[in-house]
Amino acid sequence: MKDKKNIYIYGRNPVVEALKDEPERVEKIAVRNSLRDEQIEDILHAASAHRVPVSHVPEAKIHEMVGSVNDQGIVALMSAVEYQSFGAWLNDIDTTDYPAILLLDGIEDPHNIGAILRSAAAAGIAAVLVPKHRRAPINATVYKTSAGTAGKIPIVRAGNLNQSIMKLKDEGFWIAGLDTKAERRLWELEVDRPLAFVIGNEGSGIRRKTLEHCDYHFAIPMHNNVESLNSSVSAALVCYEWSRKKFDG
Amino acid sequence: MKDKKNIYIYGRNPVVEALKDEPERVEKIAVRNSLRDEQIEDILHAASAHRVPVSHVPEAKIHEMVGSVNDQGIVALMSAVEYQSFGAWLNDIDTTDYPAILLLDGIEDPHNIGAILRSAAAAGIAAVLVPKHRRAPINATVYKTSAGTAGKIPIVRAGNLNQSIMKLKDEGFWIAGLDTKAERRLWELEVDRPLAFVIGNEGSGIRRKTLEHCDYHFAIPMHNNVESLNSSVSAALVCYEWSRKKFDG
Repeated sequence: MKDKKNIYIYGRNPVVEALKDEPERVEKIAVRNSLRDEQIEDILHAASAHRVPVSHVPEAKIHEMVGSVNDQGIVALMSAVEYQSFGAWLNDIDTTDYPAILLLDGIEDPHNIGAILRSAAAAGIAAVLVPKHRRAPINATVYKTSAGTAGKIPIVRAGNLNQSIMKLKDEGFWIAGLDTKAERRLWELEVDRPLAFVIGNEGSGIRRKTLEHCDYHFAIPMHNNVESLNSSVSAALVCYEWSRKKFDG
Repeated sequence: MKDKKNIYIYGRNPVVEALKDEPERVEKIAVRNSLRDEQIEDILHAASAHRVPVSHVPEAKIHEMVGSVNDQGIVALMSAVEYQSFGAWLNDIDTTDYPAILLLDGIEDPHNIGAILRSAAAAGIAAVLVPKHRRAPINATVYKTSAGTAGKIPIVRAGNLNQSIMKLKDEGFWIAGLDTKAERRLWELEVDRPLAFVIGNEGSGIRRKTLEHCDYHFAIPMHNNVESLNSSVSAALVCYEWSRKKFDG
């Protein structure tokens, strides 16, 4: 994968395009003070809709960022995380040595995403799939929380989660979901096949329809009437249960 | 022997959990004026059932109590977290069924402390020891991050960590520390004795002198040249490695 590097883009149309095509990569936008017109208003609207922070800065500040270019008074800081497309990744994946991957279902807190990428990389997981919708932006917070490991594991952008699951099944993956109500304990996991673990949102868990697509359901046993674990902790336990059996079994 | 300090918890789920799990600790609840929906109604019902007084207050009042946080319009004043003193706790501990405890060495981030309390409670760990010095305050952030589980596991305030370790050894505890350079992998842990796990600070690890006091050193295997895990993730892996062997072995 690639090292983190931030990139500035400048000028109105490039910023408009970026907000339209890959808003999750736009970290923040700087607009020259006192600049107000219809197009800028539209950009500010789009930025707000995607929760991209905007600051109004003096011209000198913009020059500091991008040098003396035709910036048209607007600059966007892009994160340089490289996503792989699901199709390309699926085309390249070699399942003969039984890899495991994670599918994040509705995990939106960038701290959790970052922590999950870090544990997954450390455990030797092959990739983390992030659906296009209901996802956290892979942004600077993710990078920081991942302690620089975000570049050590492929981040794959999948479309519809359930459709992706069907395609993974076609490639020989078995789908495993955590479910507090499952009878099978995580410790009963077998690693002699390609596995895709669905990691759900901490509050709402894995969506029902997605749960139905799972070939296995596992529970992490809970004591003291604790109802759930933080999703990054659940993910780490899953990653390392697999890793322990796969590499140290 | 006990330290008392009132703490606020905020956000809907933490308040729901607190009312369910330890209503006796909820002193009062403040709800933002004009906030009315089904979940709030349920909370008011639960509060009423436990005779917890509720007041409706302006937003500014809530900010006064908890600062600028994601309070979701609801705050509960909790009576103090009760720390146990090390001496009293050690006096009462029964080691015949081989309990495990955690010793936090220099973990200062309240989010990490909260997450560790939650995993420890869920895994059936007997207590978490927090040294008087170099510790995070057990505050509202800890409580929120622990998702209300902070009250489900004894929090023991120890003095000097190394002296506490000596006393634990006198009581039959074996001391285990995580050390990335250790040859023994965590998976080789044996649970047929009382165990105290030292969880070090993520940046600096367990202090050298404390490492020397450990009877065992364990490493969590790392792939992809990842150097370390988040301390709450390491703690969760330790807690559940113990729990799996202890209760599901």
